[in-house]
Amino acid sequence: MRKNFGAQTWLYPMPVLIVGTYDENGSPDAMNAAWGGIHDTNQIGVCIDPSHKTAKNLLAKKAFTVSIGDAAHVVECDFVGLVSGNKEPDKMAKSGLHTHKSEFVDAPMIDELPMTLECRLVSYDPATGCTVGEIVNVSADERILDADGKIDPKKFEPITFDPVHHLYRKLGPVVGTAFQDGKKLI
Amino acid sequence: MRKNFGAQTWLYPMPVLIVGTYDENGSPDAMNAAWGGIHDTNQIGVCIDPSHKTAKNLLAKKAFTVSIGDAAHVVECDFVGLVSGNKEPDKMAKSGLHTHKSEFVDAPMIDELPMTLECRLVSYDPATGCTVGEIVNVSADERILDADGKIDPKKFEPITFDPVHHLYRKLGPVVGTAFQDGKKLI
Repeated sequence: MRKNFGAQTWLYPMPVLIVGTYDENGSPDAMNAAWGGIHDTNQIGVCIDPSHKTAKNLLAKKAFTVSIGDAAHVVECDFVGLVSGNKEPDKMAKSGLHTHKSEFVDAPMIDELPMTLECRLVSYDPATGCTVGEIVNVSADERILDADGKIDPKKFEPITFDPVHHLYRKLGPVVGTAFQDGKKLI
Repeated sequence: MRKNFGAQTWLYPMPVLIVGTYDENGSPDAMNAAWGGIHDTNQIGVCIDPSHKTAKNLLAKKAFTVSIGDAAHVVECDFVGLVSGNKEPDKMAKSGLHTHKSEFVDAPMIDELPMTLECRLVSYDPATGCTVGEIVNVSADERILDADGKIDPKKFEPITFDPVHHLYRKLGPVVGTAFQDGKKLI
């Protein structure tokens, strides 16, 4: 038997996307978005309501970054989702997060978050907040790389948002190999 | 120091979305999509290339379901991503998955997968494959509910796609509380 919950924006997993932008004066901002995902080849989609400072910023600069929330910075990632950059001018200072400018786009990298997508704005729909960015570069801090120079999820510890319980969860153990396990049924 | 990887469609976590559709004769199909996420209030976005049978089906029926891959069905979920419904008429039989019609939309529910979003097609962009659906209902099998009738991720065991290593991982332990932990910095 199934239980119906009605219309809900629930998915497992949901990401913790920390969207970084500069305002017209070059001051950095960051916000936390769970609504988003890979949109198309080399594109990411993130839902950012027009009321957010981030929306104004990315329209001004035509660029944004998406850093992935990690277990070491749960408090900081949650904070940038709780506090509005429109209301709190010292948001970034209070967050404890530090930034430097991306080599590729006019948007800030967050020093503390070890994996970032650097994006050029492709389109923004003010009716839905749907923000599409071309992923120009993905970078990762060397401290989360394995011996082969690949991102190691065990060192990285990316977090996920649980939309039913409002909790952050880490990733867990490997349970299968993609493009491989299904061959058992061919 | 950061390492640059160039333009990559990498995100952590990425979902394992099993998209269910009927063709014009009412035969069910399912495919595996990792590119997608919540798109807007009560909407989901999934990238489905026009070459897929799923694209033809959802345009014909104006409806689809999204079931979430789980650890108990890694092989079946991977299989429906490996094999094309255009080339294999017995795809669903070979997958071992069984279906019944949604109460809410003209699309199949997959009996074995315990959480499903039932969606009415809102828009489809053939240039990008971007498929937007209105989430009409979310349902979950009673076997994955906790004592309060809520979805329990520990019973559910949803899987995530690791785009760097092509592995499926389960969710892990709770590391924080959303809309709460960040208050420490206010």
